[in-house]
Amino acid sequence: MSADKTAPAKLKARQPRGFVDRGPADVAATERMLSVIRESFSVYGFDPVETPFVEYTDALGKFLPDQDRPNEGVFSFQDDDEQWLSLRYDLTAPLARYVAENFDALPKPYRSYRVGYVFRNEKPGPGRFRQFMQFDADIVGSGTVAGDAEICMLAADTMEKLGIKRGDYVVKVNNRKVLDGVMEAIGLGGEENASRRLTVLRAIDKLDKFGPEGVRLLLGEGRKDESGDFTKGAGLSDEQAEKIIIYTLLESGQITELEDVTNLPVAERAVKGDVLTFRSADDDKSYFVESNKGVLDGMMTHFGDNPTSRAGIEELQQFSALCEAAGYDRGRIRIDPSVVRGLEYYTGPVYEVELTFPVTNDDGQVVRFGSVAGGGRYDGLVGRFRPEPVPATGFSIGVSRLFSALKAVKSPIVDTKNELPLVVVTAMDNKSPEFMPGYQAMVSALRQAKDANGKPLLRADLYLGSSGFNAQMKYADRRGAICAIIQGSSEREAGTVVIKDLILGAELAAASRDVKDSAEHKAKQAEAQFAVPVAELVEGVKRVLARHS
Amino acid sequence: MSADKTAPAKLKARQPRGFVDRGPADVAATERMLSVIRESFSVYGFDPVETPFVEYTDALGKFLPDQDRPNEGVFSFQDDDEQWLSLRYDLTAPLARYVAENFDALPKPYRSYRVGYVFRNEKPGPGRFRQFMQFDADIVGSGTVAGDAEICMLAADTMEKLGIKRGDYVVKVNNRKVLDGVMEAIGLGGEENASRRLTVLRAIDKLDKFGPEGVRLLLGEGRKDESGDFTKGAGLSDEQAEKIIIYTLLESGQITELEDVTNLPVAERAVKGDVLTFRSADDDKSYFVESNKGVLDGMMTHFGDNPTSRAGIEELQQFSALCEAAGYDRGRIRIDPSVVRGLEYYTGPVYEVELTFPVTNDDGQVVRFGSVAGGGRYDGLVGRFRPEPVPATGFSIGVSRLFSALKAVKSPIVDTKNELPLVVVTAMDNKSPEFMPGYQAMVSALRQAKDANGKPLLRADLYLGSSGFNAQMKYADRRGAICAIIQGSSEREAGTVVIKDLILGAELAAASRDVKDSAEHKAKQAEAQFAVPVAELVEGVKRVLARHS
Repeated sequence: MSADKTAPAKLKARQPRGFVDRGPADVAATERMLSVIRESFSVYGFDPVETPFVEYTDALGKFLPDQDRPNEGVFSFQDDDEQWLSLRYDLTAPLARYVAENFDALPKPYRSYRVGYVFRNEKPGPGRFRQFMQFDADIVGSGTVAGDAEICMLAADTMEKLGIKRGDYVVKVNNRKVLDGVMEAIGLGGEENASRRLTVLRAIDKLDKFGPEGVRLLLGEGRKDESGDFTKGAGLSDEQAEKIIIYTLLESGQITELEDVTNLPVAERAVKGDVLTFRSADDDKSYFVESNKGVLDGMMTHFGDNPTSRAGIEELQQFSALCEAAGYDRGRIRIDPSVVRGLEYYTGPVYEVELTFPVTNDDGQVVRFGSVAGGGRYDGLVGRFRPEPVPATGFSIGVSRLFSALKAVKSPIVDTKNELPLVVVTAMDNKSPEFMPGYQAMVSALRQAKDANGKPLLRADLYLGSSGFNAQMKYADRRGAICAIIQGSSEREAGTVVIKDLILGAELAAASRDVKDSAEHKAKQAEAQFAVPVAELVEGVKRVLARHS
Repeated sequence: MSADKTAPAKLKARQPRGFVDRGPADVAATERMLSVIRESFSVYGFDPVETPFVEYTDALGKFLPDQDRPNEGVFSFQDDDEQWLSLRYDLTAPLARYVAENFDALPKPYRSYRVGYVFRNEKPGPGRFRQFMQFDADIVGSGTVAGDAEICMLAADTMEKLGIKRGDYVVKVNNRKVLDGVMEAIGLGGEENASRRLTVLRAIDKLDKFGPEGVRLLLGEGRKDESGDFTKGAGLSDEQAEKIIIYTLLESGQITELEDVTNLPVAERAVKGDVLTFRSADDDKSYFVESNKGVLDGMMTHFGDNPTSRAGIEELQQFSALCEAAGYDRGRIRIDPSVVRGLEYYTGPVYEVELTFPVTNDDGQVVRFGSVAGGGRYDGLVGRFRPEPVPATGFSIGVSRLFSALKAVKSPIVDTKNELPLVVVTAMDNKSPEFMPGYQAMVSALRQAKDANGKPLLRADLYLGSSGFNAQMKYADRRGAICAIIQGSSEREAGTVVIKDLILGAELAAASRDVKDSAEHKAKQAEAQFAVPVAELVEGVKRVLARHS
């Protein structure tokens, strides 16, 4: 980078759309959050595994929601042997490839967790990025619904370990088989209706967003949004659509009151302990469901005739018994027929982790925080590569969504107060290189300071710029330092160093004129800035730390 | 993924060349290693920052070693607005973009660390991957050599915190300015010789690999390797090359003995404490350098006439004084003129962290472990984007190289024994869904077990496959479980559960016939497999854990 007479115009420093940088507070807090999730998954017997960011495009398959064209939504490029490579768009497709490739070497059922960034080549928007992090856990090689139950309990435990209180989250569970049976019953069975079934699933998935009436439109002719964009519907008759809607809202065994429930705004549902409450805006009447068993009984009564549905309901009954045995009630894990997940590859139970506490959205409305994780059973995905069938189930946490949630509930895990305190050693005489070794020795001594457990006591920074003393003190403030270390020529001659408590100093500076004249204030000033022999620097700093811990 | 009559042939599960998966032991141990590095960097006042994997191609620049053509070595693809994007190939170019873009908002000097994968679109080979992890620390906005000293001390401290003993590593330091002056002195100054200077630098960088004679060839006409491939040299005359070689090996003030040193195999150099020893194979004579000051005096005597070299030597003198003041001797941070780093953008001090302990390479030869990190001052890189000059210095750790090193020295940080012990709950009656809730309750109880500090005591896994009991016990072994929990119908009726100590069990099974008949052995057998009431499961497992902790 030596001087070049024909140097081009300066480059503009900018980022591609949909990609973001993350600063110190976010990176450190996210790291703590990931550690908690790792430990939680580990306690459930899951082992970490890591696959690369790049896979053969064909190995990834085409399983993106709302993407029907090949390679749509994926960043792809050709290798020098002309084969197409892609950046992974989730952590499930690479897991399927990994398990298939290492099938004989892995203990089965194989429990693994994975964390990392995934990439979507999509139009970015608010809260919609082209690079984002997922944290997944999966059980491959187990066809029993006990696997799905383990995943849902793991999800519930993980939320609590992260500082989300019981009652502020719920794991909602449904079963694709029940839905498949409902669709068979209204004449949407068979391979020839596969894409129509997917349209129905994706319509139901929009229940939280558009409400029952919006879903009804998406099940029928289609729906026009506020901007005038038209989404083509599944083309169901009113009768067919009604059956789907009734199933979706079937959270009460009291089918006679379902019509009222159907028209209730979704935001007025609430879960407390074991009880789900609906409040109707029309008749000011409440509806209750007291247990998962009530919902399952209702399902069996109204949809149990179809053998596919019946098999699905029986799975959910077993699922429910497992959760109960382990002490997870309906307030934590809830059978909810409105959950479908928009992905085609799910074959059995599907689940979603919803945070139920209220937040104010960008439009100023108070809404539930919403979904932070989801998943389900995907018995066909690994089988794409293998001669034998390989059942699997798992879920994926949206890491940045969850991180926002932890900030919203003020979880201690993402509190920046948990960082080590910072001490800045200033370099008053930084114009004279011969004095720098003295400052260097101070910062090195501070870095050796340990607490009772032998862990570092603090972070220590030496000012390395060329600015004068005032700018150095501003630097210490800007970095959030708890104290600054100062040595000029008179201190150097006396063999001392000045410790300035920046927190106490700021407090004293803010005091009124009267207070400032008091003897007490003057005593405090002596505490806020004091000299110690150089050899006692660490002890002096410990006094300041103790004051503010 | 429903059955499809026209299903295509099964896909082959395979990975693109140069990309690898990483299993549980590596992932967990690497994570612990990264935590130690994070803490070490944090104590030095460095803040984390994270930039995305994708950048505009032009923002990355062309700073790959050994890559002269644009985009060579980089994975690139076009965005939908036709602009070229690339996967980052290191963490320095994205930092330059980040600092330039956020210049006014950042405290300056800006200390940051970054960790993450980088990508090289190169021909993969043994130990050479297309995706690998780097861990960087940089100080941007400080032009003083004190910044370089901080980075080198940080590097030394980090090695020790990772379990690499003093004496097993050395941070080697040189200064590009000294070399630039040497090149000026032999007529290689000026912009017109820039690419030739780069060839010279890259030749010197090969000293460890090819020895002084190999470097001599690369400085002259060129060098043919064993396979017959010819690398074109810098085209220096013998006299010019000799000057470079003498500088490179200038580790002793005793220039009269340099010729002997020149021909010494590099592997016969050794550093002990403050003393560097050369042993000549020819005359069986030893040469010593007792301090960095000795080397610097030698440099000043022989190359101080050139003003550029002199400025560089003076920087190294200041550097050396700072390291000494902080207690870092030549055994830890060493001035070494053979270090150059192959990158064009370095403008001042350059450094390399070398691990000096012996390992046996793939050819069965005993060699030093070698370099695990390197860096230097790059005062021009951020300035590409900014109107003002922005000096910077930093270094980069090759994470997987360092990980191999920690395994080689058996650092406790990468010891898998540090994982929580695993308990497997078997499901003898897994054919009957009604018994699964009982097993589920056991595994859930185990997962609640905490140690005295409230941390999880163990990991607990429930067998979720469909195989019989023997396969379940094999599963527990394969997963490395410390004990297995067993309940059949008789235990269930008695309200008990059997705990089988798999470690003690294996020991007893290996005993001889005579021992097996002894009363002591039988007593131990009762310890290796015992029943407890279901409610005392956790206490029983704690007994087994205590036995093996």
